[in-house]
Amino acid sequence: MRTFVRFIALALAAQAVSADEGMWPPSQLPSIEAKLKARGLELDAKDLSSLTEYPLNAIVGLGYCTGSFLSPTGLVATNHHCGFGIVQFNSTQEKNLMVDGFLAQDFAAELPADPNQRLYVTEAISDVTARLTRGLDGVGGLKRYDTVDKRSKQAVADCERDAGYRCDVYNFNGGRNYLMIKQLEIKDVRLVYAPSEWIGNFGGDVDNWMWPRHTGDFTFLRAYVGPDGKPAPYSKDNKPYQPKSGLKVAPQGLQAGDYVMVAGYPGRTNRSRLAEELRDAIEFSYPRGIKNMGEALDTIARVTKDRPEAAIKYASTVQGIANGYKNQQGQLEGFAKTTAVADKQAEEARLLAWIQQDAGRKLRYGGAVVALQAELARIRALRETELYGNALLSMGPTLYGTARDLYKLSRERRKPDAERSFGFQSRDEIKFKGRMASIDKRYDAQVDRALFELSLGRYLKLTQSARIPDIDRALGIDRDDMTVADLSGKLDALYAGSKLGDGSERMRLLDAKSRDFEQSDDSFVQFAVALYPAFERMETEWKVRAGNDGRYRAAYLDALIAFRESEGRPAYPDANNSLRVTYGTVTGYSPKDGVANSEFTTLEGVLAKVTEQDPFLHPTRAVELMQQKHYGNYADPKLGTVPVNFLTDVDITGGNSGSPTLNKRGEVVGLVFDGNWESVSASWVFNPALTRAIHVDIRYMLWIMDEVDHADRLIREMGLEPAP
Amino acid sequence: MRTFVRFIALALAAQAVSADEGMWPPSQLPSIEAKLKARGLELDAKDLSSLTEYPLNAIVGLGYCTGSFLSPTGLVATNHHCGFGIVQFNSTQEKNLMVDGFLAQDFAAELPADPNQRLYVTEAISDVTARLTRGLDGVGGLKRYDTVDKRSKQAVADCERDAGYRCDVYNFNGGRNYLMIKQLEIKDVRLVYAPSEWIGNFGGDVDNWMWPRHTGDFTFLRAYVGPDGKPAPYSKDNKPYQPKSGLKVAPQGLQAGDYVMVAGYPGRTNRSRLAEELRDAIEFSYPRGIKNMGEALDTIARVTKDRPEAAIKYASTVQGIANGYKNQQGQLEGFAKTTAVADKQAEEARLLAWIQQDAGRKLRYGGAVVALQAELARIRALRETELYGNALLSMGPTLYGTARDLYKLSRERRKPDAERSFGFQSRDEIKFKGRMASIDKRYDAQVDRALFELSLGRYLKLTQSARIPDIDRALGIDRDDMTVADLSGKLDALYAGSKLGDGSERMRLLDAKSRDFEQSDDSFVQFAVALYPAFERMETEWKVRAGNDGRYRAAYLDALIAFRESEGRPAYPDANNSLRVTYGTVTGYSPKDGVANSEFTTLEGVLAKVTEQDPFLHPTRAVELMQQKHYGNYADPKLGTVPVNFLTDVDITGGNSGSPTLNKRGEVVGLVFDGNWESVSASWVFNPALTRAIHVDIRYMLWIMDEVDHADRLIREMGLEPAP
Repeated sequence: MRTFVRFIALALAAQAVSADEGMWPPSQLPSIEAKLKARGLELDAKDLSSLTEYPLNAIVGLGYCTGSFLSPTGLVATNHHCGFGIVQFNSTQEKNLMVDGFLAQDFAAELPADPNQRLYVTEAISDVTARLTRGLDGVGGLKRYDTVDKRSKQAVADCERDAGYRCDVYNFNGGRNYLMIKQLEIKDVRLVYAPSEWIGNFGGDVDNWMWPRHTGDFTFLRAYVGPDGKPAPYSKDNKPYQPKSGLKVAPQGLQAGDYVMVAGYPGRTNRSRLAEELRDAIEFSYPRGIKNMGEALDTIARVTKDRPEAAIKYASTVQGIANGYKNQQGQLEGFAKTTAVADKQAEEARLLAWIQQDAGRKLRYGGAVVALQAELARIRALRETELYGNALLSMGPTLYGTARDLYKLSRERRKPDAERSFGFQSRDEIKFKGRMASIDKRYDAQVDRALFELSLGRYLKLTQSARIPDIDRALGIDRDDMTVADLSGKLDALYAGSKLGDGSERMRLLDAKSRDFEQSDDSFVQFAVALYPAFERMETEWKVRAGNDGRYRAAYLDALIAFRESEGRPAYPDANNSLRVTYGTVTGYSPKDGVANSEFTTLEGVLAKVTEQDPFLHPTRAVELMQQKHYGNYADPKLGTVPVNFLTDVDITGGNSGSPTLNKRGEVVGLVFDGNWESVSASWVFNPALTRAIHVDIRYMLWIMDEVDHADRLIREMGLEPAP
Repeated sequence: MRTFVRFIALALAAQAVSADEGMWPPSQLPSIEAKLKARGLELDAKDLSSLTEYPLNAIVGLGYCTGSFLSPTGLVATNHHCGFGIVQFNSTQEKNLMVDGFLAQDFAAELPADPNQRLYVTEAISDVTARLTRGLDGVGGLKRYDTVDKRSKQAVADCERDAGYRCDVYNFNGGRNYLMIKQLEIKDVRLVYAPSEWIGNFGGDVDNWMWPRHTGDFTFLRAYVGPDGKPAPYSKDNKPYQPKSGLKVAPQGLQAGDYVMVAGYPGRTNRSRLAEELRDAIEFSYPRGIKNMGEALDTIARVTKDRPEAAIKYASTVQGIANGYKNQQGQLEGFAKTTAVADKQAEEARLLAWIQQDAGRKLRYGGAVVALQAELARIRALRETELYGNALLSMGPTLYGTARDLYKLSRERRKPDAERSFGFQSRDEIKFKGRMASIDKRYDAQVDRALFELSLGRYLKLTQSARIPDIDRALGIDRDDMTVADLSGKLDALYAGSKLGDGSERMRLLDAKSRDFEQSDDSFVQFAVALYPAFERMETEWKVRAGNDGRYRAAYLDALIAFRESEGRPAYPDANNSLRVTYGTVTGYSPKDGVANSEFTTLEGVLAKVTEQDPFLHPTRAVELMQQKHYGNYADPKLGTVPVNFLTDVDITGGNSGSPTLNKRGEVVGLVFDGNWESVSASWVFNPALTRAIHVDIRYMLWIMDEVDHADRLIREMGLEPAP
């Protein structure tokens, strides 16, 4: 009688929202002071923008995570998942600190981290755009890259004359701005306290990105320096570092609706990318990435089965891959529900119209979008080789990478220090050596070979024109239909013929000459030398891309920022691992019609999730205390129980993990450790109705420290008193 | 360093709650008037308890569901899933009313239901306990059953002297009380209006029992009577029935926190069962039931694949099985999270202690629990035969059941009417005949045989002692290791040698003599005659059980009710398909820590769920109106959109489906159609924090009727005006 057609719902209901997106460089905070104050900030924005004052001078970068000083003697709080590598580094089959947890009863008992572990404190940021890019108008490609690179290194060298500091040039807004960031580089990092991973990683990959969360994702480290107070590698004689500030802890925590801010080191966002780049991620990179990561996880699980020692070596790797795997799936799910590509296309169309409206704008910005799109099309044509060929060259088997980097070091050393490649200068050598020393902590030949075979299987599916001749030659690939099995003899020889698994051999090669590598009979060294010309060609191509990007994208961003500012919209740079501040409110959200996610989870929710299955195992003592409703001093008056995790609308991303959550007075009320599932696609598009950060509540941290683990020494060190 | 053990969390967090459980017989309502008034009722409890006054005189039973009169001309509102069988009955492959929906533009266009369809209006309830059980103190088993049965039939016959009425004796509190319920029996039921199942069953089995729901689960029927105003089978000359009351519709609906009540016919609950009966359900009946239902669903899906005509015939069966399948899974999930068995054990222990405390109680109740438990143990020993042997006798192939019932009718007819079995008296014959007439509407030989083979496969796994000799003989089962394949010749013959698939043959046998059956060469008739002695033995065993239950359980319930009342706890009888009233509040709940399910869902939530996949297909017109936010007169002022479904804490169960949801003045504000996932185990234990009913909002019903389907005639008939 009536007719019906099939229909796909695309649009999510628009909701009234108040969240302000933005990961703000500290220097920009005074320009948004009105917004900060409106949300409830009691400090002055000016104080918040100073790197050398409270609270920013207590923020610590770990490179991949954030931490903060909480005491005058260098105590650093960060996430359990950020300190997990250090816990793992100190674990053995006999003494599994991951499950048992660890608590040092005094300074002497604190355990040294992997020698590569660093803590960075940002002390100065200066604009070096003019110094790096003068005379480069209209120049792209290798010339731009090399010029900027050379000038950067000079600027870095100038900056690093100040011993104990690490300086780096950061690219903001796609090459529109270059900033020199000077950071104190602490080289002796120790493990002070980690709760059991049954608390610190409770819920594991099942709960990761999923509200409601119930995870005690915190760990304490300590910064040590030499007897002279300057950064120094680990030594028994080192002393705890005395930071300029330790953040004050506010044990009363927060309530729903309270002002909140987070200072930390967000890694990468893509908010200013083109619609076409987002579409590429959705249609190519993420689907392939998800497939490949899924296969890698399966492979590691299979090859480490019944070999706990190998499993421990790969635990951190697995956690990282699993995180990326779930993240990319979440992004695809998020994009499927929204109109992100269309929204970006519409904004680009409006940008082009805006440029066309005005002769000056036409002159200044005209062609920027077109040029960038053309460059993106050029790169897209290479993506199969990039994903399956270059991936072998740049990552490949662990001992190949080791040999290649050692060989490269020998070659780079023939150049003046200032001309060497990034990562191979004398300033990098301690870290380089540390990495070389610790390779076997995370290496197992069986797992490594299985992963190599996986990548090789993908590579063998490429047509000859997409393959890399040097790889084909080195492995004897001479037909389109070869399989990994056909190469098994070659792989046997590779894995049997190398001494690089031995640390002393790696240390020996740190000082070898290039010729020593070229004449070596070590299988992986020979392999690395054979692939080296291809590796260099790949690096050159990347430099060309970077040079073009520095030309075209900077011009595009210049236009985009001007356009956004003309519409009164936030114009903050994409995250780039530099220190940022974001602010917001403690607030839940509606994940779907008829359901509201509330601001806090509680101890009772932890108890309800406990099972006898990983990842929901839980320490007996904590379970007993929860059953007894033994809340100590840490119950929230409104909730009537201890809050565990909470939701806010601050704008964070990977790298922010471990960042202190601060109240309106800049006091610590928790640590950021996760985003909700709906936030996963926020690296491309921030959705104020749905994007939420997840924090571990300071009251839960203190309850675990005080009632479960009796970390009285640390509680006192933070200026608080444990329960009697 | 510390030790941890594995642990299973059992207890859910206790929550502050205010819900009052209870499915109250109308006569008990005055005794809880204070509670009703405290919740917000504006009517007097006395008015609510009268069967012959507004609103209870407008409540209609469908046997398996509830409906209500909404107009002076017999318009009945019920759930779409309650009217689904009628829609299906009127559907053909060419004219699929299920997908298209149906709207009669005038009385003449209204479509007759299956002749078995009935509407019942309860007009009188009287206590017949004394009449039925006098002289039976201390008597159980067959003697008790037969005596009560005989007296019941006499009482029913007395009651049914009033033509047009159906009288039935209902067992309350396990045989402690018998009530005669007298109902007007309307025999001509017609389909007036059903929205497309894409609305009426939106979300289907995926969303069934799952909040948030977005289903327009409503349909309109009409009661017809003979020209003399008395119930009569379908005839063109029949007229719409004029009920004493039609419920008033309150188009403004409800708000969160508002008083709400539901009047209807809840089917069965087990709230007063023993801990051991619950444990049996958890450990035996439900796991087996889930397995068997899952296999049945798979089998029907397999055998109806690419045969839409067969699929339509089994659509209603499939919906029923799928509902039970999900329900029992939900119950097991619910029990796994709670301590229901232990709670019941604790209550039984307290009951026993309470009995022991007092000499009078010891004398009166002593032994009741022990005797009932002994009887339950006796039954438990027979459960394999019951589930896999007796199931074949009592259900079995469709045409076997048809032949068996026809044969039984011929045998019962040799007795005086008052002595015949339940269902085989002259009062049952019209319904019996109607059932016989419509068998082929829901019968397909291929599907039927596949389901029979499934049951037979299970039966063949029983050891010889658990098998039934008559079945073994009839099918030639003479070894323990026989398979269904071994019986295929026998089954071929059974399915090929019967004319019972033909309606005229069934009609002919309605008047046949027993001897005609015994001498028949029809394969299924022969099969039924061969199994008849076993069938009778099984019926006798059931009567023994019923007689014992009437003795022991009544005594136990007598003790339990006295005990509960001594503690000031609700003492309402378990649901038994009789008319009940439950009351509560519009209120959400927290399904788990950190998540709150809110009171209402909205049109925007429907739109967000629409996909191109069943069961989330949706009519184009409705989608377009939602996209345009065309709310008509039906938006809620607070929500700013049309509410679709809502949550309350009223206490309902299967059979309540279609019940009108009434506000504090007894006006219709929606229809009950589902419970939440957490309510599934409420048939055994009501959890005030988690047990919720789900209703379709009157405003969504009116929006669909008015804006989507233009059912102006019906809107006016309910005393409202469609939008201009």
